[in-house]
Amino acid sequence: MFFEGSEKRIEIVVNGDSQSLRSFGDSFWQQAVAKAGADVLSKISNSGCDAYLLSESSLFVWDKRLVMLTCGNTNLVDAALFMIDQLNSVNIAWLSYQRKSEFLSHLQSSHFEDDIQRLNEVMIGRAYRIGHLDGHHHYFYCSQKGESASVSRSMQMYHIDGQVADYLRGDTLDALSIRQRLKLAPLFCDFEFDDHLFNPFGYSINGIRHNDYFTIHITPQERSSYVSIETNLNSALEASSIFCELLNILNPRVWDVIGFNGQLVVDAFPPHIDLADCNVSLNQADTLYINHYKQAKRERLVAEAL
Amino acid sequence: MFFEGSEKRIEIVVNGDSQSLRSFGDSFWQQAVAKAGADVLSKISNSGCDAYLLSESSLFVWDKRLVMLTCGNTNLVDAALFMIDQLNSVNIAWLSYQRKSEFLSHLQSSHFEDDIQRLNEVMIGRAYRIGHLDGHHHYFYCSQKGESASVSRSMQMYHIDGQVADYLRGDTLDALSIRQRLKLAPLFCDFEFDDHLFNPFGYSINGIRHNDYFTIHITPQERSSYVSIETNLNSALEASSIFCELLNILNPRVWDVIGFNGQLVVDAFPPHIDLADCNVSLNQADTLYINHYKQAKRERLVAEAL
Repeated sequence: MFFEGSEKRIEIVVNGDSQSLRSFGDSFWQQAVAKAGADVLSKISNSGCDAYLLSESSLFVWDKRLVMLTCGNTNLVDAALFMIDQLNSVNIAWLSYQRKSEFLSHLQSSHFEDDIQRLNEVMIGRAYRIGHLDGHHHYFYCSQKGESASVSRSMQMYHIDGQVADYLRGDTLDALSIRQRLKLAPLFCDFEFDDHLFNPFGYSINGIRHNDYFTIHITPQERSSYVSIETNLNSALEASSIFCELLNILNPRVWDVIGFNGQLVVDAFPPHIDLADCNVSLNQADTLYINHYKQAKRERLVAEAL
Repeated sequence: MFFEGSEKRIEIVVNGDSQSLRSFGDSFWQQAVAKAGADVLSKISNSGCDAYLLSESSLFVWDKRLVMLTCGNTNLVDAALFMIDQLNSVNIAWLSYQRKSEFLSHLQSSHFEDDIQRLNEVMIGRAYRIGHLDGHHHYFYCSQKGESASVSRSMQMYHIDGQVADYLRGDTLDALSIRQRLKLAPLFCDFEFDDHLFNPFGYSINGIRHNDYFTIHITPQERSSYVSIETNLNSALEASSIFCELLNILNPRVWDVIGFNGQLVVDAFPPHIDLADCNVSLNQADTLYINHYKQAKRERLVAEAL
């Protein structure tokens, strides 16, 4: 029943005078998604952006920017290479490619080092690893030139526990009930939602409000549970209160926060230990913030029979 | 310059009426070691045991018991299968096979699940994983029947730092100086030592005193440093004070302690956070204790350029 919830992520910004990315149309984005080994399940749109819900995570497309996340054993780098080729690299103002450490990295069809070797054949970039190999770590690659200047905040929650976690692992799920338990309607006021329940486990939701987005992906499996949220909400306070609420509901044992040009207000986080932090100045405009947290309480481990 | 310091470990106890393991002789043990893909570098002996220093870790052989540790990308399970075959499983009173989580598990030629599948073809055993997949975890397999009733304590230190760590990464190493910096002569009184410096990095030492042993293996490489110590010293106090001294000298960021029928007195450990613990009752006689510790201070991570 293992599923690798951990996502790979790509962000591309095109130059102001290049063709609108939204104008490429659904079939183009379906092709890009297929390159990664995923499918488009559904789409919602508004005046600002198109949000595609994928069989493995999400794709958001604005006129001048896209963010694509894929989990499982997808090959996001193949989608990246396809897009670089089709968009023509002269039109690309910024590209970043990220991977988080996986639960079972040996089951992945490529590793970060392989991916950046392929990216470096078509562009000039820099790559980093943040965090030790024997714990949570993040791989980050970005174009040498250009800037993103966007704001996004994401949180990765591991080993969720309690009533909602139990519900998510149960066999009587429905999407509306999950939205209610996660309090998504009050937390994301005026957002349009698009969600999907996977069989036998898993839940994904995209939400958009003009140019704002959020996306949540839940892999509830008991021994490798993983829930991620990402949003470009500009207000640190608003993002922080949403993240805090989800921590209280999902009660993860450990969690990481990745801020791109944005941090969080953590005072209201549940009792925790600050394990480690980092900020990486990528260029004049962009800073990457990474924080690792753990519940304050010492954990009594259980021997899992294999 | 990456080297996987993390060890695989096998312990075998033979029945009281079976042939002395020591009587099998050097060439037999060289064969067993070769099955794992390692070589015997040197040997010391006393009235109680034979201690072989290996190209990848160590082998200790007593009349009725053996402990073999191999690091790197060795196939210890092949040595285990060879020994089970040669010793004849009816003579085996107890067998355990352990692996710790590796820094780069995808570079290993087998995974624990593969190994136990092969062991289960020739014996009946139980397997456990202790610790989450996204952090330090330990795999433990042991025979369904029988008992070890031995005592051992080991400590795995990750991300060493400071003067001695810097020395171990330098290019003017000599074995005597390492022994002095680690204070091994006063810590292991009356032990006979056998050590080896590896090129360009790494140090291993075996020590024996009648039936007592200790072994230390150092992989000092900056981004994946790992130092392990294991001993069967019967006194918890004596083992604890040695482990504390090494923690003070090597200043690891995180460390794990694995006790087999023995725990440690941790009051004198450097300021730390108890991350997690576990005890697993394996049978009437044997209990496995695992503890994860981290330095109390929050870590400021550095982005490693790749």
